[in-house]
Amino acid sequence: MTVPSEATLKPPVAVVACGVIGRSWVRVFTRAGHPVRLWDPSRDAMEAALVWHAEECARDGRPTAAVQLCASIADVVDGVVWVQENGPESLEAKRAIFAALDAAAAPDTILASSTSTLDMTAIARDLAGAHRCIVAHPVNPPHVIPAVEVLGGEHTSEATRARTVEMLRAVGQVPVELRRYVPGFLLNRLQVALIREAIALVESGVAGVDEVDAVVRDGLGLRWALMGPFGVANTNADGGVREYLTRFGGSISGLMDDLSPTPALSPELIERLGRATDAMVGDTTAAAQRAWRDRLVARLTALKRETT
Amino acid sequence: MTVPSEATLKPPVAVVACGVIGRSWVRVFTRAGHPVRLWDPSRDAMEAALVWHAEECARDGRPTAAVQLCASIADVVDGVVWVQENGPESLEAKRAIFAALDAAAAPDTILASSTSTLDMTAIARDLAGAHRCIVAHPVNPPHVIPAVEVLGGEHTSEATRARTVEMLRAVGQVPVELRRYVPGFLLNRLQVALIREAIALVESGVAGVDEVDAVVRDGLGLRWALMGPFGVANTNADGGVREYLTRFGGSISGLMDDLSPTPALSPELIERLGRATDAMVGDTTAAAQRAWRDRLVARLTALKRETT
Repeated sequence: MTVPSEATLKPPVAVVACGVIGRSWVRVFTRAGHPVRLWDPSRDAMEAALVWHAEECARDGRPTAAVQLCASIADVVDGVVWVQENGPESLEAKRAIFAALDAAAAPDTILASSTSTLDMTAIARDLAGAHRCIVAHPVNPPHVIPAVEVLGGEHTSEATRARTVEMLRAVGQVPVELRRYVPGFLLNRLQVALIREAIALVESGVAGVDEVDAVVRDGLGLRWALMGPFGVANTNADGGVREYLTRFGGSISGLMDDLSPTPALSPELIERLGRATDAMVGDTTAAAQRAWRDRLVARLTALKRETT
Repeated sequence: MTVPSEATLKPPVAVVACGVIGRSWVRVFTRAGHPVRLWDPSRDAMEAALVWHAEECARDGRPTAAVQLCASIADVVDGVVWVQENGPESLEAKRAIFAALDAAAAPDTILASSTSTLDMTAIARDLAGAHRCIVAHPVNPPHVIPAVEVLGGEHTSEATRARTVEMLRAVGQVPVELRRYVPGFLLNRLQVALIREAIALVESGVAGVDEVDAVVRDGLGLRWALMGPFGVANTNADGGVREYLTRFGGSISGLMDDLSPTPALSPELIERLGRATDAMVGDTTAAAQRAWRDRLVARLTALKRETT
């Protein structure tokens, strides 16, 4: 008789749709010991996700829970405590998937969406189980980058919110709760704020793509990997964020008002940025860049956990 | 008879004014083997910088070049190939210091300013040696964070620009050249673009300071420590930055236009941000946070150098 390991005692979860984000979620849950039930309308996508997942497990060299391919939404939700949905980013598609999930899943199952743009109020509008529907938006790829934005809709219950935060923490993610919906949530608003100014600086000829990127990857980004903008401001003056925003408040406000207007993303500008980015990255592939990024981010997050 | 090590053969450089930035520059140059001549109007500041420098050297456990305290500007520039100026951030102060430096330094000495805001055209306007004056603006602290913004004034020579880039590379920094002056250069424009949206999101109640920071330090920042905004965009779609800006161009442009207006930095808002930041960082000191940041950034940059 074999005694089940702790890992096999964790309840199964479902991953619905498995592109780059979905397969990464599979890794998040299996690594934490949850058996995963996987469904995607494309059998090829599921097979590809399994191959990728096996490679990741081999690289990690750690025991891992099983992945079960499923034939339908009704099949994938069978016996799971959590569904992570990663379907197409359109309200119609999400509403159809959530209607099917809500009809098929046991009443206690949390239905979480990886949507980066949509409001759960709209996705779950007509559902009997709207109270158990919630946004859990990861940063790509979630098995490497821990932050996950959490935001309910109008009818999402407090219990669902609390269970979502608890579950995400338990699998090693960092849940970040929003108090209300705004387009782009926190993550994409902050990302777009940076890239808007970045594009404008290149477009107006202040510097090239490589220079703008260098200021981030060899400058600002080294601090932002450890502290957010408030944490950075707090260390930028001995009196902390209060002194920083007071003593430098005039020049900060002046710069805020001087930021560039939104550049028009014309095909010519996109091609110009594309050529400059090609020149910057050289002949490495996107896959090689992602693999390097994921390896270093994993080491960095391990380092942060060791030292805080 | 002792043979001088390679390090002792490097030419001396001068560091003028040694607050947090100046003392960090001392470490940059001594670590690279340059003897440093140091002058600050405050003898106490020089002594404090020496103590700090000795601690840093002890931590690094590597041989290091000497630091010579000097009595005046005329003294500090004696025999140096490079001056790194870190005086007060006002045009009047910089003009006075640069006039004194230009009058005293040998004709070939590069006069570099750490200014984060001023235009070298204005600082060096009336100087005979305007051709050898240049901005070399570091990220705090430069002995840990490599990016340095490089920008000449109207009269800065091509030779000065080329020698500046070469010198900064030789001491282990990453020079980032701007083509023309804009307020805030690249670095502070990008930093302010992020913090503007960050403050606005907190002010309007979408999330708290800790949540906004978490999205950066456990999310976006982990990528930005390795890739700038264009590098990230290039890995966010299989077709690279072109596909990213084309396929998601509509929603990116929509978000760009939806970004928050500049928040007014009222005393009430600053106090609210201060309290929330206090709660986030707990009872750690700014010095402890900086020490942790510097240690991790040093390990991260070493990791990046090993793997690229």
